[in-house]
Amino acid sequence: MNFLEERILREGRVLPGGVLKVDGFLNHLIDTQLLNKIGAEFRRRFEDVEVTKILTIESSGIAVASIAANYFNVPVLFAKKSNGVNMDSETYSAPAYSFTHHAEFHASVAKRLLGPEDKVLILDDFLATGSAAMALVDIVQQSGAVLSGIGIVIEKGMQPGGELIRQKGYRLESIAIIDKMDAESGTIEFRKL
Amino acid sequence: MNFLEERILREGRVLPGGVLKVDGFLNHLIDTQLLNKIGAEFRRRFEDVEVTKILTIESSGIAVASIAANYFNVPVLFAKKSNGVNMDSETYSAPAYSFTHHAEFHASVAKRLLGPEDKVLILDDFLATGSAAMALVDIVQQSGAVLSGIGIVIEKGMQPGGELIRQKGYRLESIAIIDKMDAESGTIEFRKL
Repeated sequence: MNFLEERILREGRVLPGGVLKVDGFLNHLIDTQLLNKIGAEFRRRFEDVEVTKILTIESSGIAVASIAANYFNVPVLFAKKSNGVNMDSETYSAPAYSFTHHAEFHASVAKRLLGPEDKVLILDDFLATGSAAMALVDIVQQSGAVLSGIGIVIEKGMQPGGELIRQKGYRLESIAIIDKMDAESGTIEFRKL
Repeated sequence: MNFLEERILREGRVLPGGVLKVDGFLNHLIDTQLLNKIGAEFRRRFEDVEVTKILTIESSGIAVASIAANYFNVPVLFAKKSNGVNMDSETYSAPAYSFTHHAEFHASVAKRLLGPEDKVLILDDFLATGSAAMALVDIVQQSGAVLSGIGIVIEKGMQPGGELIRQKGYRLESIAIIDKMDAESGTIEFRKL
């Protein structure tokens, strides 16, 4: 079991409806020491690929990506879920669905900030249906950039996102993959790799 | 002029309606080297206060807070603007208004994650009306924690937030304070300290 799986077993809680609560260290309160370990682990797993930008999506992906970016020494670009007054009118945009908020949204990135010269590593905290990750892949493709890979902190292996992405031939590295979790007993089973 | 003021002059753009566009390095594409300098600068300015948690608000505050947290060696807690399925029912909550989205929202933090034992440093990317910062101060007070200070990357000194917070006696450190900006000429004037 790796450092992240241990932490999930120790502090994660399984709620009804397929929700894994890790808000004590990953997506509400953020353990920056853990995120540094995660950043170093992504660097190790993607050390053979070229990366010029890390792409993520607001909100909880930003912490993961920002600290990981220190290990790649590249900037972070985060896709926005809604356009504020400070957003460009020229954007790459792709639809996605939020499991957490039960709502559709559009992920957008200013065209000016991503282009064919970029090699992009997509990072996010969770992968479940793959909807957000595929929206980010779509944005990378619209921009003409090269997709170097996709790194996920926790993949819910019982949902279709991981398989979908691997079947398309994209390189996907998830630090923990949960194959089974049960709210009643509180058990969590990880995929053995 | 400090490193941040230089960067704002070089790459920031003033838009009509009091919008400063810094999406090429601060709140869309994030220059992680700059954020490391900002983190180190916050540490220097708050080196005499005790900090157990950094509190910020989604979304663009998260990058600033996460990288700064490396310099304080403490976790980051980010207030949420909407409650997803993974949010506690027991929260501290305070109303605020988003200048970027022209909309009211509630900032919320799970009660479980903040308490009287904490010494909190609030960090955010922008301070304008002070609405978001005061919502975070309100949350700190509800929790019984000690407010160690407030650190802001860019303060819009021509808006009332900074004065409001200083008048209340809170310690506020802004790395750049803009006293005047003009969309037509593109000029930006910083407060001399």
